[in-house]
Amino acid sequence: MCYKLRREEKKLKRKAVLVSIDGLGDRPIHELGARTPLEAAVTPTLDAMASEGVVGLVDPYAPGIPCGTDVGHLCMLGYDPKEVYSGRGPIEAMGAGLEIFPGDVAFRCNFATVDNNGIVQDRRAGRINQGVTELAGILDNITLNENVIANFAPATEHRAVLVLRGVGLSPHVSDSDPGGKNEGMAIQPIRPLDATEAALKTARALEQYLAIARELLNQHPINKQRIMSGLLPANTILTRSGGIVTHCIPLKERFDGIRCAAVSGEITVQAIAKMTGMKTFIHPGITGSYDFNGQLKASAALELLHDNDLVLVHVKATDLAGHDGRWDAKKTIIEQIDKMVEGIKANSPPDTLIAITADHSTPCEVGEHSGDPVPVVIWGKGVRVDKQVTYGETSCSLGGLGRITGKDFFHILIDLMGFSKKLGA
Amino acid sequence: MCYKLRREEKKLKRKAVLVSIDGLGDRPIHELGARTPLEAAVTPTLDAMASEGVVGLVDPYAPGIPCGTDVGHLCMLGYDPKEVYSGRGPIEAMGAGLEIFPGDVAFRCNFATVDNNGIVQDRRAGRINQGVTELAGILDNITLNENVIANFAPATEHRAVLVLRGVGLSPHVSDSDPGGKNEGMAIQPIRPLDATEAALKTARALEQYLAIARELLNQHPINKQRIMSGLLPANTILTRSGGIVTHCIPLKERFDGIRCAAVSGEITVQAIAKMTGMKTFIHPGITGSYDFNGQLKASAALELLHDNDLVLVHVKATDLAGHDGRWDAKKTIIEQIDKMVEGIKANSPPDTLIAITADHSTPCEVGEHSGDPVPVVIWGKGVRVDKQVTYGETSCSLGGLGRITGKDFFHILIDLMGFSKKLGA
Repeated sequence: MCYKLRREEKKLKRKAVLVSIDGLGDRPIHELGARTPLEAAVTPTLDAMASEGVVGLVDPYAPGIPCGTDVGHLCMLGYDPKEVYSGRGPIEAMGAGLEIFPGDVAFRCNFATVDNNGIVQDRRAGRINQGVTELAGILDNITLNENVIANFAPATEHRAVLVLRGVGLSPHVSDSDPGGKNEGMAIQPIRPLDATEAALKTARALEQYLAIARELLNQHPINKQRIMSGLLPANTILTRSGGIVTHCIPLKERFDGIRCAAVSGEITVQAIAKMTGMKTFIHPGITGSYDFNGQLKASAALELLHDNDLVLVHVKATDLAGHDGRWDAKKTIIEQIDKMVEGIKANSPPDTLIAITADHSTPCEVGEHSGDPVPVVIWGKGVRVDKQVTYGETSCSLGGLGRITGKDFFHILIDLMGFSKKLGA
Repeated sequence: MCYKLRREEKKLKRKAVLVSIDGLGDRPIHELGARTPLEAAVTPTLDAMASEGVVGLVDPYAPGIPCGTDVGHLCMLGYDPKEVYSGRGPIEAMGAGLEIFPGDVAFRCNFATVDNNGIVQDRRAGRINQGVTELAGILDNITLNENVIANFAPATEHRAVLVLRGVGLSPHVSDSDPGGKNEGMAIQPIRPLDATEAALKTARALEQYLAIARELLNQHPINKQRIMSGLLPANTILTRSGGIVTHCIPLKERFDGIRCAAVSGEITVQAIAKMTGMKTFIHPGITGSYDFNGQLKASAALELLHDNDLVLVHVKATDLAGHDGRWDAKKTIIEQIDKMVEGIKANSPPDTLIAITADHSTPCEVGEHSGDPVPVVIWGKGVRVDKQVTYGETSCSLGGLGRITGKDFFHILIDLMGFSKKLGA
């Protein structure tokens, strides 16, 4: 009885699992009978949840605006990307394990090969993957002019991150990476992208750093050895995606001490989790690739539910299938996710809420992220059950949640969990 | 014929009654067959209005954000609480009848008892209710340093309000009230909550005022008498909920001279009505408690419709039932409201619109305000009738108004009434 609930507890609180199916949303596919992969997949668990719960459509940021995985997840966790996100650099730096502070400016980097005329021969230095840690080591912790310090760390394969720390820096500088899929373009000089002193200072620091890096890399025995073995030397650094680190208020502070954890094999989502103060669960069997291990993810989520209020479970494989245009694979992965959710639903503590949504759509016909809204279902005690009985793009457009933003979705989930704060008295 | 109407009148205008059912929204309740109190209640009038009108869901402020009664009503009347609301103090000051002006800083106060060491013995001074007006009188109209004037007025029982008036004051100062339900905590010193000169000045003024108040109260014959009678003396003032008075543009100025009035037995809603320039109808038979007198409210509303364009009728009892977890009582009150609306509908002038909604949800299972949206129905000439035939949380989620905010709702009503202003030409 309601009355009892109120007397026994100070405030009614519930746990929740939030399943993020990367790139889930899609468009009708002719070969699937004009259905989406989600609509064509056999998903008894998801449909039961739709039937017993409430569904709707979520625009992660706003209608028609495609989001990256980073921005999509920030929105899904109730953050305004305009406030906490200014480029991919800081996310990658976090993912690479570099300590960063508000005001730092971070860049994604590639080890690359340039010839004597500054023409990029290979944007990935022959996809170098040996000796990268050693090369990164000599580029780390370098003091530049004007009291700027550069920290550098390797990421996956030929990738790395650079963090500049100093007073009055700006992310508004151009890339040294000429970009493009074809090599043969010149490495670009760093230009300030606005007239502020911060952009000028950052451009100066970055140019100085890149010159030092070229010199150190050219002299390094690993590169001399690569040339002797007929391999392309990693003799320069290409920079792109500069972003300034902003202060991101952790979820715990925003929502009444809520304890959050994330299960994801993908570095970007792990970085978002760290940035927002979630515990991250790392396991070699949990990857961000096609080899999706639902059973392992389910048991990790259930384990984390003991000491956490909200557990995020992320699946990347659907997005990869969307990018590759493989609607058949996407459908199959969704069916495996249905089994994973079945395991979570059957074994989570009583009254645990389960919400399922996505960071963005990746329609197979596009092969890229799109601005289509994503389907959402919220299941568990307290939700206002609507009339929809399946979990799919079209049924969700008629659901009880209506059409909401990613931020709205998270606030609704937080409110159902009992962690929201009243506006006014 | 429309053409005629346009020719005869300068602009088509209609009157409206807006019924605000406090805390109406709820969640499915097992004992009611997984229906909400509104869905379970027998409401032939409300359902007929849904059938002949248009329904939808309203997020008073934004999805998932619980609102207080004050903020919920400001939103329902089309105001942005971020612009006109900075704390409960000014609302209470208005409710207590104090004249306030933009720039004033107002606080909610308690008369309380402290011992010689500054430890709060009773946050309510033994729930003092005799002599309060006299004690409040000696604390009123005191000139402090730096040209700050303090006004003080009693509210209900041990409660009171304090208004500081001066140049450059700020609401960002801490509470002297240690809060909590248990006594035995020390009265808190007033600290500025930011580094502005305004916060520093306000903290100084408030500290000075509280010292003067303690001295005046200690010497007062009423307190000496209380001690002799074995009662706790009201020997100090506890302050909390500081808010600055902002300029609130009256409804009349915002919407083409619209004349508004409110029927409410609750001090908070009466204060919001005053703040927004509505006439308030006060009557001892109209209360903000369980003893809801629908017939009296209906006749008051009908009377006010003569000289007003918009009449707000507020019912508090549903919110009380939600707080107490009494779904059965909530259902019964809603059935009484149905009768009240029947009376209004049958006797209001031709073409009067009736809108019914709420300031927030107070689900019985939570016993507190929640961020669930509230159902809305608008009935009368001009509305686009949708397919819904009942007034309930689920049916409203499928209504023709969609999912809108409180501000959207009010603008829609104002537009149907013919008081909206064109943007552009």
